Amino acid sequence: MENTNPLLEAFNQAAYKLGGHGNRDIQVLKEALARMDDNMVADMYGKGAIIEDFQRKMALLLGKESAVFFPSGTMAQQIALRIWCDERGLKQVAYHPLSHLEIHEERGLHELHHIEPVLLGDKEQVITLEDVKRIDRPIACLLLELPQREIGGQLPAFEELEAISAYCKEQGIKLHLDGARLLEILPFYQKSAEEICALFDSVYMSFYKGIGGVAGAILAGDTAFTEQSKVWKRRHGGDLIHLYPYILSADYYYEHRAGKMAQYYEEAQELARYVNACGERIKTVPSVPVSNMFHVHMAATVEQMTPILAEVCERTGVGLTSYVRVRGEAESYFELSLGDRYEAIPKVKLEEAFALLGEKLKTL
Amino acid sequence: MENTNPLLEAFNQAAYKLGGHGNRDIQVLKEALARMDDNMVADMYGKGAIIEDFQRKMALLLGKESAVFFPSGTMAQQIALRIWCDERGLKQVAYHPLSHLEIHEERGLHELHHIEPVLLGDKEQVITLEDVKRIDRPIACLLLELPQREIGGQLPAFEELEAISAYCKEQGIKLHLDGARLLEILPFYQKSAEEICALFDSVYMSFYKGIGGVAGAILAGDTAFTEQSKVWKRRHGGDLIHLYPYILSADYYYEHRAGKMAQYYEEAQELARYVNACGERIKTVPSVPVSNMFHVHMAATVEQMTPILAEVCERTGVGLTSYVRVRGEAESYFELSLGDRYEAIPKVKLEEAFALLGEKLKTL
Repeated sequence: MENTNPLLEAFNQAAYKLGGHGNRDIQVLKEALARMDDNMVADMYGKGAIIEDFQRKMALLLGKESAVFFPSGTMAQQIALRIWCDERGLKQVAYHPLSHLEIHEERGLHELHHIEPVLLGDKEQVITLEDVKRIDRPIACLLLELPQREIGGQLPAFEELEAISAYCKEQGIKLHLDGARLLEILPFYQKSAEEICALFDSVYMSFYKGIGGVAGAILAGDTAFTEQSKVWKRRHGGDLIHLYPYILSADYYYEHRAGKMAQYYEEAQELARYVNACGERIKTVPSVPVSNMFHVHMAATVEQMTPILAEVCERTGVGLTSYVRVRGEAESYFELSLGDRYEAIPKVKLEEAFALLGEKLKTL
Repeated sequence: MENTNPLLEAFNQAAYKLGGHGNRDIQVLKEALARMDDNMVADMYGKGAIIEDFQRKMALLLGKESAVFFPSGTMAQQIALRIWCDERGLKQVAYHPLSHLEIHEERGLHELHHIEPVLLGDKEQVITLEDVKRIDRPIACLLLELPQREIGGQLPAFEELEAISAYCKEQGIKLHLDGARLLEILPFYQKSAEEICALFDSVYMSFYKGIGGVAGAILAGDTAFTEQSKVWKRRHGGDLIHLYPYILSADYYYEHRAGKMAQYYEEAQELARYVNACGERIKTVPSVPVSNMFHVHMAATVEQMTPILAEVCERTGVGLTSYVRVRGEAESYFELSLGDRYEAIPKVKLEEAFALLGEKLKTL
């Protein structure tokens, strides 16, 4: 593949990179498998110790009766919504206008399940109790994504979540958690996963975001729900003969990184301070991160920012990002999710990079 | 897990096993990855050299314009049928009463795609041109499974396939190949994969049957078809961030075993002769195998056969099968698919096992 993007090229050469755990190469899987017993018996169509033990472990973590491992969150969440819709006999659900289901799944929920979404609240804000109360149609399920990834990983206050949960219960609306980045928000809320999940009827969690596994997801809820989800998993073509490559790596990196979420969160706050000290043209959203992630918004075009970010990277060896995207007229942005890489960057390098970035932005 | 099945227990202890390539344990994946470069860059949502190169290689093998890697055949085939139905504006397809879609997928084709099947021909026979001509409703697509797994892996004559293909073309019916075991039938037909696939508009092939990979499938056809299939793959939740554990193992075992299909085929014929020499109560279906697989039918109940097969296994060290299933009244069966294990069994051991089996059957 030809690569003519100067920012991506500079980023790939950078000695230090702000985000992520490391390159997505096959060493990630090899490392996870290395110390495992060669003769460990593979899972088989959802059965066997590898999958059943991990499902039990995750059910316990999330405080749910039962959990099912899925190849993807796309599959797990469509299925969760389908089950709740079928139970209510109503093909309508509600979620945020920038939900993964709305913008990244080619309308699978509609095309496969004939479920229609009610898009809820302000695109740039998290969903509030008021938004939920304003829904003017019956819905079977409300999906909340915590943190709301496409707006920099924002979160409502825990009290707001409790109020939404209570309201849904009262109204007979099932509440589903898109917890792709669930562990990443525990340090902000100062709650256990179980305490957060207790507000929800069903929960999805991913293993290749903050945890940094290869792929895969967990869907949890009561046993009547998860048993139905297994039937749908087979229908979707997700009941693979062997899911162990994903399960074993999910478990391995869960063990390695579940305890590091507070560190990533604090580092994200530190990094956001560096960004926000670079002048008026650049800021983080949210201004103070509430998880390991945030977005960087720039009052400059992609064409203006690309050479600046490439130059910062080349001159200081610190790769801030591999891309910049358009965000309205004369505005651009990129996303940062902190992982293992950040702690390896010397402070003096970070200071040098952001000093240069601030200087360059002033010249625009 | 408690295991109180004496046949399964005996089989697990057996020094020799008739079918398969070996235990399904994680060593299968470790071996495939062992010599690969740790820094090989992972595929990413269907892009990157790992997936694109393999897709090109398989398109070339199958003689199709383009190919797409899927996590499962269940997903790939439902999608193929959906695309052909949408093209024709008709939600009806035809396939064998024992097709994988009919008996192993929880009616996913109906529940997700609202497609209804016309079940074609005799349950115990392969589909003939006459069966196809007798369909009394319009259909968008005919699916043929070669070999027909649930009846022991039977095959129509190549001339029959050509006639069905010509008839479908004439009638505007798309022809899809369920080629889960496509490479396994090439020695019988004495044709290349490309020559067989030329009769079909779309083709699915699996990587964990004769090839013995971990999981995964290829769907091939013209580019307009495969491009649509990628959109549906995302909708199904099959466009995983990384599919490399399956792709790399598929490619590795393809390279190791694609050339061994003729050996497996000849061994299946030899093994069938041993079975068919054990008296009137036991026979193979088909009587002469046409691929690496066949079924063993017994005129005896599961309760009669289980102790006999367990005893043969315990006394001779040759595990014929780990299970027996009911097949009508006072009949039972099991399936055999030959792989790498068979060649390691000394002939004297085989003779001993089948002599004992024949003797025991006489006592019934």
